[in-house]
Amino acid sequence: MTEHLLIKALKGEQVNRPPVWMMRQAGRYLPDYIKLRNQYDFFTRVQTPELACAITLQPVDQIGVDAAILFSDILVLPQAMGLEVQLVENKGPFLPKTITTQNDLEALQVRDAEHNLNYVYDALKLIKKELNNRVPLIGFAGAPFTLLCYMVEGKGSKSFDKAKQFCFSEPELAHQLLQKITDVTIEYLKLQVAAGADLVQVFDSWSGMLSPEDFKKFSQPYLEQIAEALYTHAPVILFPKGSWYALKDLANSKASGLGLDWCISPRMAREATSNKITLQGNFDPCKLLQPIPQIKADVKAMINEFGTQKYIANLGHGILPNIPVDHAKAFVEAVKEFR
Amino acid sequence: MTEHLLIKALKGEQVNRPPVWMMRQAGRYLPDYIKLRNQYDFFTRVQTPELACAITLQPVDQIGVDAAILFSDILVLPQAMGLEVQLVENKGPFLPKTITTQNDLEALQVRDAEHNLNYVYDALKLIKKELNNRVPLIGFAGAPFTLLCYMVEGKGSKSFDKAKQFCFSEPELAHQLLQKITDVTIEYLKLQVAAGADLVQVFDSWSGMLSPEDFKKFSQPYLEQIAEALYTHAPVILFPKGSWYALKDLANSKASGLGLDWCISPRMAREATSNKITLQGNFDPCKLLQPIPQIKADVKAMINEFGTQKYIANLGHGILPNIPVDHAKAFVEAVKEFR
Repeated sequence: MTEHLLIKALKGEQVNRPPVWMMRQAGRYLPDYIKLRNQYDFFTRVQTPELACAITLQPVDQIGVDAAILFSDILVLPQAMGLEVQLVENKGPFLPKTITTQNDLEALQVRDAEHNLNYVYDALKLIKKELNNRVPLIGFAGAPFTLLCYMVEGKGSKSFDKAKQFCFSEPELAHQLLQKITDVTIEYLKLQVAAGADLVQVFDSWSGMLSPEDFKKFSQPYLEQIAEALYTHAPVILFPKGSWYALKDLANSKASGLGLDWCISPRMAREATSNKITLQGNFDPCKLLQPIPQIKADVKAMINEFGTQKYIANLGHGILPNIPVDHAKAFVEAVKEFR
Repeated sequence: MTEHLLIKALKGEQVNRPPVWMMRQAGRYLPDYIKLRNQYDFFTRVQTPELACAITLQPVDQIGVDAAILFSDILVLPQAMGLEVQLVENKGPFLPKTITTQNDLEALQVRDAEHNLNYVYDALKLIKKELNNRVPLIGFAGAPFTLLCYMVEGKGSKSFDKAKQFCFSEPELAHQLLQKITDVTIEYLKLQVAAGADLVQVFDSWSGMLSPEDFKKFSQPYLEQIAEALYTHAPVILFPKGSWYALKDLANSKASGLGLDWCISPRMAREATSNKITLQGNFDPCKLLQPIPQIKADVKAMINEFGTQKYIANLGHGILPNIPVDHAKAFVEAVKEFR
């Protein structure tokens, strides 16, 4: 059996062209997704393996990406730890009961919390079967710091001041919480791999709100623990959005790949990581609204700057809801056409 | 007459300790400000020179900062260009009519628009008189890209996708708009200096949403034009929040200082700018909620890393509303006590 392009790129093996997928490729901009969204609420879609499977496969079938990524949400983990999570369509998450005290921490379920997520493993098994090895399957989780942000702030935010103030004024509680999340995340990701995930990505969507020094305290150690615990099970991609200053250190972790947002040039990222690790990214999702010839030219320039090896073409963040399907396709085609 | 610490630091002259002020020092967390806020709406406070003056002086008298910064808002400029701007307390700005077409652009007032801001110059004259040369007076404006963000998006946003999509899909219109804003901003800042501002700061609050390449297209040329036009009138500080990648280029502009957010270490910023230019920042505002001894220790560490010369102690972004007054004072005292 020939190994998939994505796995080869993560192992640093020679490829003819870079593999390509898009963050949030399942959902939002796809008409078939919107039909399901109008029929079933968010958690029904996430918790019903047949629906999660159908949504996961849509971009593989319709856009031609080189990987499937499980349709789910990073907030299913706090939910599995006993926190109520509401997801209002187009309004973002809301957690009515936030974490502020030692008692709140004690009330969280840690032991066996990963078993509250059996619907995820069931979905992965089903997707794996339906994929029939066409493309690899990506599992994922939120990074501990990013999950802390939601668990303390209780909702999305521009700057997560409340969550950061908790870290700075109650550092011991913060570290206890981060460790609890890390422990559950490790078991959760191991079970995702056991259920069929060929690799996993850890999304640290808000780590870029931290100074380099505070990233080292509140994010990096937990990302490293996860990479260390998982790498013998499956390749790990870490995506610390905004934390350009951490790339050098993370290139020395057990991760196989680092995700990049668009606020760093490919050249700077290669320099920071000394070409030690596979890089993934980093097309500005807003640029998918450009005319198709311009999208294709920009993708080509991006690949030229990253180089074709040790590279996974992707966006620098999730695809936006207002992107026309043929523009998303053009992005994928541009990578596949690269010579 | 001895020159003020802040001006000396901007000129690169020897100082005994760094000067200190805080972004958004006038307002929010100060009880005397909150009293005025409860009496007068936002634009009444901004447009009434006596009120703007009283608010501007509060932190000088009560917190002991080394500079006064005009109490105003960056959105008075789009307002002066004919756009309606609503500022709802604790909700952020709202612009009912946004810029999307050539016609929208043509309808903007450019010629003499700066004369619609006479209340700003009146406020500066009054503040200058009341200050009686105790500390220097800082004028300011929003950077063209940041103002474009609001003028196109119509409101605050986490990522200003709509504004960026406008730049990418209508680059010619975007550049026309940026040039119009730049032209008015230059006249506006010159009149601020004529009215008494000893230096000016240009806030590019959203430039960090741009890739390094797009910053070079949509932000940097306009910042450079402003610095070039103003530097013979007064020292200019550019604050391109989040655009760490641009520091090297901007160190070669006509600006006298560069503002930094906390997402870069002082050492990295000194390296990027080769110690060519005065740096300002970059304490994480969330850290002002820490216990006072910790604030003081962190400020000391920050100054040690920046060095005392060519340095202005400040926050990395505006002070937050929930910061106790004695914590803000502790920040300022820690700088003044530095040995």
